[in-house]
Amino acid sequence: MPGLPPTPIVLLHGYWHGTWCWAPVVAELAARGRSAVAVDMAGHGLHARRPEAARARPFSANGFAAEHSPVSHVSLDEAGELLVSQIKKTGGGRPCVLVAHSMSGTVANRAAEMAPDVISHLVYVCAFMPPTGIPASKYLGSPGNEGELLPALLRADPADVGALRLDPGSADPEYQALLRHVFYNDVDPVTADAAIALLSCDAPARIASGSTTLTTRGWGSVPRTYVHTTRDNIIRPVLQRRFVAQADEAFPDNPTRVVELDSSHSPFLSMPGVLAGVITHASPRAGDPGASHPRAGAPPSDEFSRRAAATG
Amino acid sequence: MPGLPPTPIVLLHGYWHGTWCWAPVVAELAARGRSAVAVDMAGHGLHARRPEAARARPFSANGFAAEHSPVSHVSLDEAGELLVSQIKKTGGGRPCVLVAHSMSGTVANRAAEMAPDVISHLVYVCAFMPPTGIPASKYLGSPGNEGELLPALLRADPADVGALRLDPGSADPEYQALLRHVFYNDVDPVTADAAIALLSCDAPARIASGSTTLTTRGWGSVPRTYVHTTRDNIIRPVLQRRFVAQADEAFPDNPTRVVELDSSHSPFLSMPGVLAGVITHASPRAGDPGASHPRAGAPPSDEFSRRAAATG
Repeated sequence: MPGLPPTPIVLLHGYWHGTWCWAPVVAELAARGRSAVAVDMAGHGLHARRPEAARARPFSANGFAAEHSPVSHVSLDEAGELLVSQIKKTGGGRPCVLVAHSMSGTVANRAAEMAPDVISHLVYVCAFMPPTGIPASKYLGSPGNEGELLPALLRADPADVGALRLDPGSADPEYQALLRHVFYNDVDPVTADAAIALLSCDAPARIASGSTTLTTRGWGSVPRTYVHTTRDNIIRPVLQRRFVAQADEAFPDNPTRVVELDSSHSPFLSMPGVLAGVITHASPRAGDPGASHPRAGAPPSDEFSRRAAATG
Repeated sequence: MPGLPPTPIVLLHGYWHGTWCWAPVVAELAARGRSAVAVDMAGHGLHARRPEAARARPFSANGFAAEHSPVSHVSLDEAGELLVSQIKKTGGGRPCVLVAHSMSGTVANRAAEMAPDVISHLVYVCAFMPPTGIPASKYLGSPGNEGELLPALLRADPADVGALRLDPGSADPEYQALLRHVFYNDVDPVTADAAIALLSCDAPARIASGSTTLTTRGWGSVPRTYVHTTRDNIIRPVLQRRFVAQADEAFPDNPTRVVELDSSHSPFLSMPGVLAGVITHASPRAGDPGASHPRAGAPPSDEFSRRAAATG
């Protein structure tokens, strides 16, 4: 269908991040002729709220650990509804490619189940992709995610404060180094520090604790790609593979396309060109070879063999 | 020229901001079928660096006032070159619309003088638009900008530290209220607080102190629109009008189109739909009525009379 503009792309960040983290990928997509819109998750970015204790002077670790989160009320329901509205606004009636990183995978699950017709392709980037009825929180700190380093960064009990709370403003060099190692272990340290300065403190716990019933006509009808990250310290490779296996078992007529990147949890910063290439290939523009978008039953393409080219 | 994709739009934020501030405008532009890429200015966003003293615990106001800025070396030369490369990457050979807010106006001046052929239209949003050879810093705290409230927010001497330094992490409610009032006086307070949490501390002084020689074949050849903001506490309306008058006097064959918004310094947050409408009209997509882009000598269109419709 030459002449049709390419399918718009919606980019959703993970916990604590915001639209800012996608800037390099948006630029790389534009260079490939693709239009992308980064959106803020509920409770994040321009919707974020920080606890008062985060900027108390003097800072009190106990106070920071105890204050109830101003985003504790933000639920998966709210996050899913916001995302669907953002996709509809971006597409203006046309379906969009939805790219979801990390915890936003569970929001993408919800959005695709709510409104499968507005999503032409799902791209999970080292994201939670929990099976039907299972909350993402089940996998945090679980035996199936051994080696995960995130829990060491939390500075409050999520059950107490209603949020997964980081301290990006910490003066402790060891904590700062751990933030870099957990999130950005293959990103240059200066960029990683700039990213840390932009992280919000509080990620709403109810997004992770919510779950979605996935159906064949809903989520199961949308073609999906999973971008594996082999050096991931938050969602370990074994858990990423489990998400894919569970999805393919539940929806065998719509198997997951898999691309593997030798990346940390943040390929949008460490290899934005490669990631943009993956997103572009996962969702060809109208008129490109392989541009058809069968909604189910499509076999994984040879293009999407297990290792993407290291150039993008 | 129906069939040609619309001209891409590059959005550049002002001092202390980043790509994140454009998220609502990007969404509104997408809803209008327009593709926009927000980019980080040199020394900002993912290129920002914060002084160590910003996260010292306990915090020391004296230490914060004294530490040399890690972005003091960032110059207008560097900012202009980065912007030109960002525009070229976005356009992929096609010229782009460039939208510049606040201090990024002086970077837009430089980029348009360096590479007029890659910019189809300049949109200055309550931006510095200094005349040939004059640094933007000349207008900060000047008698011609009476009522400007920014100097009260600075927490270090720019001549000492090489940066205009804010303290967005301040625990002082009066300082936080002043930040909201100066930057976001018509933005809802919750969104304003989220924006403040994303501001960087240090804006490189050398961007404001640099200047550009503007020529008829360079900057003077690019059509431009100026978006006046009537409730602006940083670049006061009288100074905004002066920028336009000086430009039109120097380049009478390429007069400025002017649109007036009843907005604070941050219409991208307080009225993103209206601003997106202004940007869209200032730079019609190919095939739309009025889509031709004469490079000089175009009379201001009736569309761009002094007050834009309050809906967008």
